[in-house]
Amino acid sequence: MASGKELCEGVEWRIRVVDGSSEVLVPPTGLARKVWLRTKGLISGLGMKVRMFLKQAWDMGANDPRKVIHCIKVGLALTIVSLVYFMRPLYDGVGGNAMWAIMTVVVVFEPTVGATLYKCLNRVCATCLAGFLAVGVHWIASQSGDRFEPFVVGASIFILASIATFSRFIPSVKSMFDYGAMIFILTFSIVAISGYRVDKLFDLAHQRISTIIIGTSLCILVIMLVCPIWSGQELHSLTVRNMDKLSDSLDGCVRQYFTNSNGEDDQKLQGYKCVLSSKASEESMANFARWEPSHGRFNFRHPWKQYLKIGASMRSCAYCIEALNSCINSENQAAESIKKHLSTSCLKVSSSSSSAIKELAESVKKMNKSPTIDLLVEEMNSALEELHNDLKSLSHLLNPSTTAENQISATGLVPFMEIIPAVTLASILIEISVRIEALVGSVEELVKESEMKDKIVAKEEKPEGTMKALQRV
Amino acid sequence: MASGKELCEGVEWRIRVVDGSSEVLVPPTGLARKVWLRTKGLISGLGMKVRMFLKQAWDMGANDPRKVIHCIKVGLALTIVSLVYFMRPLYDGVGGNAMWAIMTVVVVFEPTVGATLYKCLNRVCATCLAGFLAVGVHWIASQSGDRFEPFVVGASIFILASIATFSRFIPSVKSMFDYGAMIFILTFSIVAISGYRVDKLFDLAHQRISTIIIGTSLCILVIMLVCPIWSGQELHSLTVRNMDKLSDSLDGCVRQYFTNSNGEDDQKLQGYKCVLSSKASEESMANFARWEPSHGRFNFRHPWKQYLKIGASMRSCAYCIEALNSCINSENQAAESIKKHLSTSCLKVSSSSSSAIKELAESVKKMNKSPTIDLLVEEMNSALEELHNDLKSLSHLLNPSTTAENQISATGLVPFMEIIPAVTLASILIEISVRIEALVGSVEELVKESEMKDKIVAKEEKPEGTMKALQRV
Repeated sequence: MASGKELCEGVEWRIRVVDGSSEVLVPPTGLARKVWLRTKGLISGLGMKVRMFLKQAWDMGANDPRKVIHCIKVGLALTIVSLVYFMRPLYDGVGGNAMWAIMTVVVVFEPTVGATLYKCLNRVCATCLAGFLAVGVHWIASQSGDRFEPFVVGASIFILASIATFSRFIPSVKSMFDYGAMIFILTFSIVAISGYRVDKLFDLAHQRISTIIIGTSLCILVIMLVCPIWSGQELHSLTVRNMDKLSDSLDGCVRQYFTNSNGEDDQKLQGYKCVLSSKASEESMANFARWEPSHGRFNFRHPWKQYLKIGASMRSCAYCIEALNSCINSENQAAESIKKHLSTSCLKVSSSSSSAIKELAESVKKMNKSPTIDLLVEEMNSALEELHNDLKSLSHLLNPSTTAENQISATGLVPFMEIIPAVTLASILIEISVRIEALVGSVEELVKESEMKDKIVAKEEKPEGTMKALQRV
Repeated sequence: MASGKELCEGVEWRIRVVDGSSEVLVPPTGLARKVWLRTKGLISGLGMKVRMFLKQAWDMGANDPRKVIHCIKVGLALTIVSLVYFMRPLYDGVGGNAMWAIMTVVVVFEPTVGATLYKCLNRVCATCLAGFLAVGVHWIASQSGDRFEPFVVGASIFILASIATFSRFIPSVKSMFDYGAMIFILTFSIVAISGYRVDKLFDLAHQRISTIIIGTSLCILVIMLVCPIWSGQELHSLTVRNMDKLSDSLDGCVRQYFTNSNGEDDQKLQGYKCVLSSKASEESMANFARWEPSHGRFNFRHPWKQYLKIGASMRSCAYCIEALNSCINSENQAAESIKKHLSTSCLKVSSSSSSAIKELAESVKKMNKSPTIDLLVEEMNSALEELHNDLKSLSHLLNPSTTAENQISATGLVPFMEIIPAVTLASILIEISVRIEALVGSVEELVKESEMKDKIVAKEEKPEGTMKALQRV
């Protein structure tokens, strides 16, 4: 806008009038014009921002259509609840509080099945528990006479609300019942206080509970039947995807260093950063996955916690890749001859480690022990052995004199300082391979535990088989 | 329990009876006894768990009494709302929907001022906006005739709920208006549907909005007057605390390596892990701090986002400390002579870098540019120079032969492999000091921005001064 104004003031506009002379067109420099220009600028700026915002939203929807589907699901569930309210007979059945059903749908509907189930179960259980308690407190209060009644109710609300709020800070309660504790306080307060005025206490409780059950059942039906997104499945895919990224980053970084190519896909190289930042989402997904019934290849009580251990192992690898990356981008570069000396073995280590991670990803994907992982780890170890030997023989290339930089060309030897970056890189690579072995261990544990759970479930699902076995005894 | 049972079955109890012989006391092995033992075990196990849980809760409360205060605040606010409901005159004023006030208090009350303000403002604005929109839609629906009315209402709910849900996925909306979008859907649906039945539409909207305003004002009063916890202050202290931890870890790790002492406090050494895992809480605090008015030394629009940059710089240092830690705990240890050779300069680098970080923490704490930080960075750089020289002269200690392990004692020279761990450690230390310089930059930016904001606020607060300046012109 400012530049437009300058242009207006810089150029002089002339107009040829009838008598042949020309007149200077003085631009209207009054207040009105300034206001107009400023307003125009503001509006065009706003228009630009809105357009950017809409583009961002469109891209997000196009990149992940499941988000759009989720929105349609929410709209669907809410519209169905409205229909419940429109239909007279049902409306008479659940009372004028159909609003509770709407509220339940809005509050409880989450993108994944696990999160929705967690909220539904917490809501129903906490409402029932708080309702019963509130009725009890109300009975005690009504026995204590008109004068003490408000005090009893007030004190009970104060004490229970404080305790329930405190419980929300305790990690074990927070992870399982955070939402339930809030609903408990809410229901208890409303029922206890309403009880003071409204005498139809049981009616209120019955209405609230039945509408909430209608709302939650509707949510569960919609979320599980219309394109369900399972937290467990998401956690599983995230783990596999992160392993692939880790493997690509590791291989890409080392290859870029030794081949000096800048052709590597930068997004691929930075993939390890996703691993660094996915702790919070992994934890919440594992938390919600516990609430999900069997789906796909995952049984109820699938070892979801093991995914967190795998995530931690992956992050410990990613920290090292971050250090590796800083070696690569550092100002002090190793001498070319040193790079050449180490390149074969380093590339072998990185490619074998990254294929080991790829194989682990495959193993998690298929949820069975990979037949080739032991072989790959062995290969990685033999590559490490080779790297060790190359490092040992590095001293031959070394110039023992500290100030002999001018002798280099003559002898082909390298001053000690120019060895350091490559040696650092190599020893970080060695550390990464140690951490990959830990990753192998945690993946194997996951596969073993999941197979064990599968067997238990299979046993429970075949009671005839168990009966026969018992008869034989 | 199991071991107790074994003991019972293993030892034979005899009792001497009157005639001199002794009788074997057969333990009651019936079903009843087994059930009793199992029940006893279950109960004692449960009791143990409950005791552990209570101990954990007690410790949590004792470690952070502010959590207990928060719980009392929630109880207090809820009890006051109940009093509002108990007092007839006010009750008649806000109608039978005093329940909405209770609900608002329960849902909106968060541990920090920022989070509570965020929810309060979102709730009030979204309720008003959705209320007006719903009244408009209801008017259009009522104009379209009895047959189409449900369709118009249903379609509007479907469309608006879907769009609002979608907007919650967009990062910029999510960080500012996530809660507002949910309340918008809720209020719009309830008002639009209730409009179909209840004719007193404006009454409903008026009631809901006035009760919500009562609830939110009460929450804001209680949260800001009774021992307030400010998100901004928390973020500030977390940043300072994390810097101190980073500095302690860095210094402790290097000192433990070179002095071989295991006396270092392990908790201090692991402090950098807090830095690694505090990204999520930093982000949410910075998000809530934006909603807070001026408090303490922080003005409204204090550059909270800059804290996130500082956090990122700290994490990049912490990644390197993690790599450093793995060097220290690695199996391959450097030869003692090498360690001795590098120890002085490495210790100097680590102590100067860690005192630079400590000084940065002090600078953030006092929110002014430290006068000594430049000096400390210079000191760190000269220590680095020394380390460089020590590394260069390392080649003198090196045994050029690769298989000459038996010659070591004779010559005092060290094989190349035993140099590597110390060299790696040194080069990671160098990398850490590079990252500390980036940290210095981001802290200085924070201090500068905050001083700038202070000046702007000081200007705005002195309108007389501005007036005088204008008169002079």
